[in-house]
Amino acid sequence: MMQQEFMKRALEEAHRGVDAGDGGPFGAVIVKEGKIIAAGHNEVVKNNDPTAHAEIVTIRKASRKLAHFHLTGCHLYITAEPCPMCFAAIHWAHIEKVFYCNTKTQSAEIGFDDQIITEIIEHKRPDPVAFVHTPMESCHTLFKKWFDKPDKVLY
Amino acid sequence: MMQQEFMKRALEEAHRGVDAGDGGPFGAVIVKEGKIIAAGHNEVVKNNDPTAHAEIVTIRKASRKLAHFHLTGCHLYITAEPCPMCFAAIHWAHIEKVFYCNTKTQSAEIGFDDQIITEIIEHKRPDPVAFVHTPMESCHTLFKKWFDKPDKVLY
Repeated sequence: MMQQEFMKRALEEAHRGVDAGDGGPFGAVIVKEGKIIAAGHNEVVKNNDPTAHAEIVTIRKASRKLAHFHLTGCHLYITAEPCPMCFAAIHWAHIEKVFYCNTKTQSAEIGFDDQIITEIIEHKRPDPVAFVHTPMESCHTLFKKWFDKPDKVLY
Repeated sequence: MMQQEFMKRALEEAHRGVDAGDGGPFGAVIVKEGKIIAAGHNEVVKNNDPTAHAEIVTIRKASRKLAHFHLTGCHLYITAEPCPMCFAAIHWAHIEKVFYCNTKTQSAEIGFDDQIITEIIEHKRPDPVAFVHTPMESCHTLFKKWFDKPDKVLY
């Protein structure tokens, strides 16, 4: 399969999601060694899950399939440029390459303004969420416990 | 229950996760109107899921419980400052207030350097992931289809 075919599959997923009313017009496909190992679409509305963006849904499927929390060597095909949540998830998953179709600007034009969250991260606009630092000695102890754990698994 | 009690519950969750080898030392609790509606901890290793940070796990539980993709009026208690994935998820979920214990610097000290992802978002360091824009007319059609859908649900 060629790159365009993979993107078509992501598009098909997105259409399926829109037709079913599952969420926004976003589909994703994860490819390893030239084969699709997972496909998914946005299910925020269907599952009442604000984290169920197409990328997250599909990363979860692929990592379950590969039985590993890293998708090393995998390529992700998505119908739109990822939001910061999915962008970070792509990095946590160690995905190698991402092909995206529509841009953030195009997403904003139809009502998905992820750019707002990016600007909050970049401290370019005020944060509507209040973040309160409440240090506790017992939290330091927790971190030390993990750090000293001989069989800890890094990810 | 007081704020400190909620954080203690998040800490207990984190300890449970570390003891079980489920993932990193991170726990979360979501509170609505003074009552805990969801609690969870990092399950990246247990579930082979790179997105299973404590915040994501707990947001998913809470939104399922409230049967809504927005957690308006909810407070989140977490053992550490969120990574960009969870930070964005908090915003998508419309959480009102976040109490966190350990800082990003403290997380980095024990091996969780989320700051790297933040710096990539801020274009302060090169991105190890290749992002390739591959525009397609059919992707534009997909977005238009969603935009014109009379019963679309915004989130």
